[in-house]
Amino acid sequence: MSDLPDSIVLVEEGPREGAQSEPAGIPLDAKIRLIEGLAAAGLGEINCCSFVDPKRVPQMADAEEVAAAILRRPGVRYTGLWLNERGFERARRTQLDLVGNLVASASEAFGRRNNNRGPEELLAQQRRMAERYREAGVPLGSAYVFTAFGCAFEGEIQVRQVERAAAGLLEIFADYGDPAEALYLCDTVGWATPLQIERTVGAIRDRWPEQPLALHLHDTRGSGLANAFAGLKLGVRRFDASCAGLGGCPFAGEGAAGNICTEDFVFLCEESGVSTGVALDALIECAREIEAAVGQPLPGKLMKAGGLARFR
Amino acid sequence: MSDLPDSIVLVEEGPREGAQSEPAGIPLDAKIRLIEGLAAAGLGEINCCSFVDPKRVPQMADAEEVAAAILRRPGVRYTGLWLNERGFERARRTQLDLVGNLVASASEAFGRRNNNRGPEELLAQQRRMAERYREAGVPLGSAYVFTAFGCAFEGEIQVRQVERAAAGLLEIFADYGDPAEALYLCDTVGWATPLQIERTVGAIRDRWPEQPLALHLHDTRGSGLANAFAGLKLGVRRFDASCAGLGGCPFAGEGAAGNICTEDFVFLCEESGVSTGVALDALIECAREIEAAVGQPLPGKLMKAGGLARFR
Repeated sequence: MSDLPDSIVLVEEGPREGAQSEPAGIPLDAKIRLIEGLAAAGLGEINCCSFVDPKRVPQMADAEEVAAAILRRPGVRYTGLWLNERGFERARRTQLDLVGNLVASASEAFGRRNNNRGPEELLAQQRRMAERYREAGVPLGSAYVFTAFGCAFEGEIQVRQVERAAAGLLEIFADYGDPAEALYLCDTVGWATPLQIERTVGAIRDRWPEQPLALHLHDTRGSGLANAFAGLKLGVRRFDASCAGLGGCPFAGEGAAGNICTEDFVFLCEESGVSTGVALDALIECAREIEAAVGQPLPGKLMKAGGLARFR
Repeated sequence: MSDLPDSIVLVEEGPREGAQSEPAGIPLDAKIRLIEGLAAAGLGEINCCSFVDPKRVPQMADAEEVAAAILRRPGVRYTGLWLNERGFERARRTQLDLVGNLVASASEAFGRRNNNRGPEELLAQQRRMAERYREAGVPLGSAYVFTAFGCAFEGEIQVRQVERAAAGLLEIFADYGDPAEALYLCDTVGWATPLQIERTVGAIRDRWPEQPLALHLHDTRGSGLANAFAGLKLGVRRFDASCAGLGGCPFAGEGAAGNICTEDFVFLCEESGVSTGVALDALIECAREIEAAVGQPLPGKLMKAGGLARFR
């Protein structure tokens, strides 16, 4: 009846992308508690902070402090994000687990706005970063294709645009002898629907059958978990998600667009027989704590309703 | 690639089940505006109010006023809910479009708590109500099976429990010569997952292949739209939903459990090539207005992000 995977890997984005999208930011101690709570709940990979310009992203101004304060748990990968050489140098001076991810945009217009570069320039920069990671002894990580399902600047995205962006990135991985840990298809602006997931993931899987795929989904228009489930059915085994749906605070107004909610997705997976390695009640507790720290209701549902264990 | 239906019917539950679940209730004029706005947006069937004990459900104390104030739009069915003879008599004195729905519970424990009756008594009562509808010249409507996917009092629900409850109801419809407009499977307490939808809807469809099916889903744990999409893929063509996700206000605390959000589901359908007959922008406007009337953020996502028409 089901061709779902036995297990998946969840990458927690709450402390990084989630916190970055909360207008008022999250206090340092709440971030630390969240990261440590998530690791204790069984999340194996946590994106902790961004090394970006604190003038542009004040929510991430404490990146070094976050990285320094985490009480590390064995077996957990604590990662960070950076966009350029300068951010990478900041990240290197921390205790975080560095991996060199490479990025491209299916939408040329988005790439120009987000990374200030055309597709060829962006690819050339990624190759320079790969070189830099080799020099620095940092392994390559995953390949990210932004706007794989639609773009607010360009509109519809064709599968061939996704393929082209992915091909450019995977070539760099091949040249550097590291297979990409995952090829991420990102629904950057929340346009995806399950049929589109089927179409795009299906095409990418057909072209690169050996390449593990991952999904980075936003719940901008409510279809996030339906999309994630469509991905599961296609055998996708790696997903980004954000505890409590952090980053999608309903007070953030138009454009509020958090990642899919970690504990809601864990619930869906575990109820569907897909193991996540996460203790749901402990994760719900993290979600409730971070909601209290934000001081506004966050979009996660399960943290309000609770799981089903108590009824069985 | 897709076996989705060409079109579906949406039944709007916001003014009834949604409003009933908002702790502070909704002012009368906001209810009227909502109902009229929904009809103007293209919703063809709107559940407007409940004729229940105002002492127990003060949010519905204005049922008669709601029913009297609606400026009716041709072609729209304006319905109401009642639980017993007394409520039915109240509804009969209004201008609403009465249909005699019949209900059963897959979970015996839930039936005893919710309807204060064991399964045989509940069925006997439903038969008396069918008799009463015949006398009153009110056509039979749909058959509702509550707790079809799980029960907070009884735990897991087996497909055969759903079949038994459905069989009892459909026998009454057969005896009265009216086919049930739809056989509703209700995820009353928000336990369903897509695999469970596939399993249960699949079994019911196999047993009654000619019987149109419908889903009444709650988004209690975040899987609501994933479940609805699973239903769509199985050819279900009738769904209840609540504008703005009314009834699932995040301030309502534990147990907040609105129906799936109408406009989020309309978006998912229309983007998937399934016609709903609803004008999305007008519906979003209704959602924003009712959120303003509630004075707290409601769970609907699309009303915050907007549709995609402006990007294309």
